[in-house]
Amino acid sequence: MKFSRDELIKVVSTQMPDKRWQHTQGVMETAVKLAEQYGADPVKADLAAILHDVAKYWPIETLRTIISDNQLSDDLLSYNKQLWHAEVGAFVASHEYGIDDLEILDAIRYHTAGRIGMTLLDKVVCLADYIEPGRDFPGVNNIRELANHSLEGGLVAGLDSTISLLVSRRQIIYPLTVLARNDLIKQMEANS
Amino acid sequence: MKFSRDELIKVVSTQMPDKRWQHTQGVMETAVKLAEQYGADPVKADLAAILHDVAKYWPIETLRTIISDNQLSDDLLSYNKQLWHAEVGAFVASHEYGIDDLEILDAIRYHTAGRIGMTLLDKVVCLADYIEPGRDFPGVNNIRELANHSLEGGLVAGLDSTISLLVSRRQIIYPLTVLARNDLIKQMEANS
Repeated sequence: MKFSRDELIKVVSTQMPDKRWQHTQGVMETAVKLAEQYGADPVKADLAAILHDVAKYWPIETLRTIISDNQLSDDLLSYNKQLWHAEVGAFVASHEYGIDDLEILDAIRYHTAGRIGMTLLDKVVCLADYIEPGRDFPGVNNIRELANHSLEGGLVAGLDSTISLLVSRRQIIYPLTVLARNDLIKQMEANS
Repeated sequence: MKFSRDELIKVVSTQMPDKRWQHTQGVMETAVKLAEQYGADPVKADLAAILHDVAKYWPIETLRTIISDNQLSDDLLSYNKQLWHAEVGAFVASHEYGIDDLEILDAIRYHTAGRIGMTLLDKVVCLADYIEPGRDFPGVNNIRELANHSLEGGLVAGLDSTISLLVSRRQIIYPLTVLARNDLIKQMEANS
């Protein structure tokens, strides 16, 4: 890594409004707790959490250009812009901040959409993003409660809250998110 | 066609319980009405409606064998059994009842899941299946109301009611259904 943790925090926190940085701090705290509870690497969870929203407040045209010029995704640009910062975040973490751990990069890349075959670290960061203490949306306490007992159970409830929101707003649903929650349900059924 | 309409009705009605045949009659009536309203072929809509549930009450192992032996689908067998009768219905309509009109066969095949690029006839039969007069589920009157003004609007609401039901039951969602409703929303946005 080119940057120490403290340096990373300093530079990443300047990329977003204070309120979003507070959210990031909540995700850091929650991701480390979940990692400790469910056997993921807390150091990696912390780093992925620090960086997960690094590109969240970048201009949308900058995100589009980075995705397009670097062929980061086949289909992302035809879906909701809210998904773009995750792919760009992983790219920036790798190319600007010297993160070369693929697990950390994937956890950043898939923290919003999810994917089939989510790693333990993917799950921890994605779920932490839903339930960090600053989050307040209908059903969040139910997700927090589920997360106490099952990483996959909490995460399915989180992704389902996103799907339900998009249904209620009659907005496009990113297919990978549906595939991710289907896959998590299959994992839970296989383990029950 | 090997069978007249009357002969088809006679033979198809023996393939299911009375109550399901009443539902089929409701779908016939509604599909013809929607076809007339939105410019689809009412004769084709009627035939597709007669046949849409022909395999609905066949033994699940029979459905599995027909799909598997005839390679009717790459992925259907790994998804909810409720979807299987539609694919088999199209096969039976073609192979046993001599229906050779591809539009009718597709409307039977996709009447439950939907698909990307639904034809006018696909939409009419799929929506009629949601709103025929015998249907009674939460939100059905809202779908009926939307269907008065927009074929796509009614259908998106119908498919969304299926997606919401599967979310609430934490069951697997067939990805094609999500792709179908996304595609319909894009059509509505393009036409607005």
